[in-house]
Amino acid sequence: MTASSSSEYALGIDLGGTGIKAGVVSAHGTLLREWKVPTEAEKGGGYVVARMIALCRQILSELPEGIQSEQIIGIGIGSPGVFDFKTGALVAGAVNIPGLNGTPMRSIFEAELGLPTRVDNDANVFVLAEARSGAGRDASVAVGYTIGTGIGGGVVIGGKVFHGAWGFAGELGHVTVEPEGIYCPCGNHGCMESYASANAIATYARQAAEIHDNSILSGMSPDEITCKSVGEAAAQGDALARHVIERAAFYLSVGIGSTVIALNPAVIIIGGGGALLGEMLFEPIRKHLRRRVYHQRVQSVDVVGAQLGVDAGIIGAAGLAFAERNSN
Amino acid sequence: MTASSSSEYALGIDLGGTGIKAGVVSAHGTLLREWKVPTEAEKGGGYVVARMIALCRQILSELPEGIQSEQIIGIGIGSPGVFDFKTGALVAGAVNIPGLNGTPMRSIFEAELGLPTRVDNDANVFVLAEARSGAGRDASVAVGYTIGTGIGGGVVIGGKVFHGAWGFAGELGHVTVEPEGIYCPCGNHGCMESYASANAIATYARQAAEIHDNSILSGMSPDEITCKSVGEAAAQGDALARHVIERAAFYLSVGIGSTVIALNPAVIIIGGGGALLGEMLFEPIRKHLRRRVYHQRVQSVDVVGAQLGVDAGIIGAAGLAFAERNSN
Repeated sequence: MTASSSSEYALGIDLGGTGIKAGVVSAHGTLLREWKVPTEAEKGGGYVVARMIALCRQILSELPEGIQSEQIIGIGIGSPGVFDFKTGALVAGAVNIPGLNGTPMRSIFEAELGLPTRVDNDANVFVLAEARSGAGRDASVAVGYTIGTGIGGGVVIGGKVFHGAWGFAGELGHVTVEPEGIYCPCGNHGCMESYASANAIATYARQAAEIHDNSILSGMSPDEITCKSVGEAAAQGDALARHVIERAAFYLSVGIGSTVIALNPAVIIIGGGGALLGEMLFEPIRKHLRRRVYHQRVQSVDVVGAQLGVDAGIIGAAGLAFAERNSN
Repeated sequence: MTASSSSEYALGIDLGGTGIKAGVVSAHGTLLREWKVPTEAEKGGGYVVARMIALCRQILSELPEGIQSEQIIGIGIGSPGVFDFKTGALVAGAVNIPGLNGTPMRSIFEAELGLPTRVDNDANVFVLAEARSGAGRDASVAVGYTIGTGIGGGVVIGGKVFHGAWGFAGELGHVTVEPEGIYCPCGNHGCMESYASANAIATYARQAAEIHDNSILSGMSPDEITCKSVGEAAAQGDALARHVIERAAFYLSVGIGSTVIALNPAVIIIGGGGALLGEMLFEPIRKHLRRRVYHQRVQSVDVVGAQLGVDAGIIGAAGLAFAERNSN
């Protein structure tokens, strides 16, 4: 971060299933202007990549006042899925764009736009954004989770996404929290995301509501019971809803604890829809972590909510360009 | 490693509860000559540190032929316990030397001997040795375990011990493998070392032998049942002994799997007495890991036994001096 001059900027692209968001971001993580177009995923990977390139050309032609194209040091792209971090090709797709799999996005962008390009998955991008300019500022090691449909994860060391030996580090939602637990589509049993994603919280709350009749949740239809409505009920003091959140926090502490033991991060950053539960979720995680984790100083790891909100995708994508410059 | 000239050497010291071993080690991890003296721990930390310094002076005065003192680039010290990796002071001791706790070994050695000194715990030192010149050569990310009385762990990234934010990374024996499992002295429940250390294997085998009478183990006294004798019985085809090892492998795969998911190491190196079980232990770990771990390429992580044997302590300690030179 200190290596980036404040007069340098990068383009960040947040590729989603329905929309492509892009922006011009400073080295300090300030989003100066944002553009948004529909993804039109049904038109296929070739179309989507061409659309993203056209959007970059448009941005470069209408940069915010005072910024010259020479000040744009690169492009970063974040998207659901698992990417080959060297070629920027989608290896295993969570984003439903036919034909995107295997497309070497990085070299296509570099050839078309003449700017160094880096591609990474959205959870890594989220943690990078928060570690560089959000809740994890100044942390030498930051670990983050996005609690949504599943649980994404990422590890940032020294201001860079840590990829491990082959690019697959940080898939923290699939850490085992019950050795013979619920079957997960990934092939494992007992993954953390099966117990503590927003979807898992809602599923467990529906089961709990069926057999308890003294809860706000008991009066709801299954469709009305979501992670959000569980949080609302808990905020009103509903004991069943509080139990559901406490259970998720218990399992999160098992998985987070194992990662804290391995990596000794300075901060754990929690984002995604599940993070809207806020202190109702974070405080029991902290309580359990104090037991799960051995050394006093490691126990004092911060557990905090994300700060950058929906802009994290663009800011973190641009962060890839700053963090990964000069590296392969 | 490439930064070290082949004409450079370091002193490695392996401080144990009963003996101090030291040696002259090349940048490539070759141990040229070894010295050994008793620790005499009962004489206290001050005596032990003075003894180590005297041993270094002796080694420097009788270097192997062809090596000049100018070619010694530093000193590395490995020992049980948790060290402050900046000061080299023991923070939490596993080694029973009265008065060693808090002694800033690094600055004492540097002042007395005028050589850069690095101190780390024995599990980190073991993994560093194996990653630099043993079973993990060429691995960009290596994770190792010592399966003994407990389970030590270490993470080596880019040829250096990874310490995390505050120096406590890699305590991998305390990853949770049963969320409400056996109580561990560390304060957690269900730590991997409670299920899969050599001691845990022996304890479980004794329990199993009590209620089964068709096993080699059933005919042994409790004292005769050790991790080693379980391995010997299993090698003779004893079904109960094989079950005991399979169970340890199951739990190791839960803990190792969580670390593989987080760090995507290229290799998992297993040492300590438990590693003498060899393929009887490693093969079921590999089998379970293929299920525990999501992506095909991560599943292909190597699970291998340590190669350097009892010399790893000296070689890895010297490796600290090579790996950590120029860093604080």
